[in-house]
Amino acid sequence: MQFSSSLLENAVNEFAKLPGIGKKTALRLVLHLLKQDSEDVEHFSETMSRMRNEIKFCQRCHNVADADICSICANSLRKQEMICVVENIRDVIALESTQQFSGTYHVLGGVISPLDGVGPNQLNIDTLIHRVQKEGTSEVIFALSPTIQGDTTIYYIQKKLPAETKVTTIARGIAFGGELEYADEMTLARSLQNRLPVDSYVSSR
Amino acid sequence: MQFSSSLLENAVNEFAKLPGIGKKTALRLVLHLLKQDSEDVEHFSETMSRMRNEIKFCQRCHNVADADICSICANSLRKQEMICVVENIRDVIALESTQQFSGTYHVLGGVISPLDGVGPNQLNIDTLIHRVQKEGTSEVIFALSPTIQGDTTIYYIQKKLPAETKVTTIARGIAFGGELEYADEMTLARSLQNRLPVDSYVSSR
Repeated sequence: MQFSSSLLENAVNEFAKLPGIGKKTALRLVLHLLKQDSEDVEHFSETMSRMRNEIKFCQRCHNVADADICSICANSLRKQEMICVVENIRDVIALESTQQFSGTYHVLGGVISPLDGVGPNQLNIDTLIHRVQKEGTSEVIFALSPTIQGDTTIYYIQKKLPAETKVTTIARGIAFGGELEYADEMTLARSLQNRLPVDSYVSSR
Repeated sequence: MQFSSSLLENAVNEFAKLPGIGKKTALRLVLHLLKQDSEDVEHFSETMSRMRNEIKFCQRCHNVADADICSICANSLRKQEMICVVENIRDVIALESTQQFSGTYHVLGGVISPLDGVGPNQLNIDTLIHRVQKEGTSEVIFALSPTIQGDTTIYYIQKKLPAETKVTTIARGIAFGGELEYADEMTLARSLQNRLPVDSYVSSR
């Protein structure tokens, strides 16, 4: 692309560095910003800088936070003795959006994946073990990806948790709206194994 | 979406204001920025602010510019007596990328479209007429969208231009790589009307 303004070119290049944004999309976004009021663009820029510079990670669960402890951990109405272990911040947001979970979280920062060079020491596993021991957590719920790496991570952490702690994982099965014939064999086999009494199924809808 | 940090939430909301960016994409972009160095995010923000505050519009052709006159108008190697009339800045970038045009541009800022409330006075038409009269322009080339609005705009401007000015429009026809059977009747009819001698076609490839 040929630009007649280096200011425009620089802005397009900055946007094009973001994931999934090509040069053409970047140009569209920049031309949109160019049409906005100067104060609005200033506000956009300031919000990004502030977010990067002032955001903190919860010292207890490693979730993003505005303070040293995140708003979920600081909420006394939530069940502090119940911890849901997730891979990343995005999973916390997805689970919170269901408004069905009233416990706390622990963000691992990934799953054990030797091929990608991610071992237990790169993840927030030690802080989880320490937290469960110190707080006397009653239940640890794993909400990790249903992959070999996810299962390995569950297995690794479970062995390190105190024997009296209840350890569960979120249910695997056919998703609502999913077609049975398109489900993979593994999912289908597991959903048969873990079949539910019809009474509990109907009442939970 | 439920966020545990208002800094994160504000950043996501700012990104989601941009065209074609939904909440999920905005979150992905913000989490990407969060992983970058603080200086890189600072640079991103500054580039956007500077672009909006310092960018100028060329006083001659209304293209974006770093100075009062854009780099295309200021380039003495370009044919100043030839003006290509386009709708917007994006069209200038597209035409410049072909590296085939050595004249100058004039950005109208849209086309005449009464249904959208755009009349001749909302566009940079007066400055074009004035420029052609003052500079003694030899040729005005219209590169507008092949729509009724585009054709109306050409017709309106042409009547106001000096009679001695040569007025042309870019060729309409079947695009390279286009399938003949999928072309609309209008395009096919026009490309038959404006057929070219095979000699000129072969030599131009």
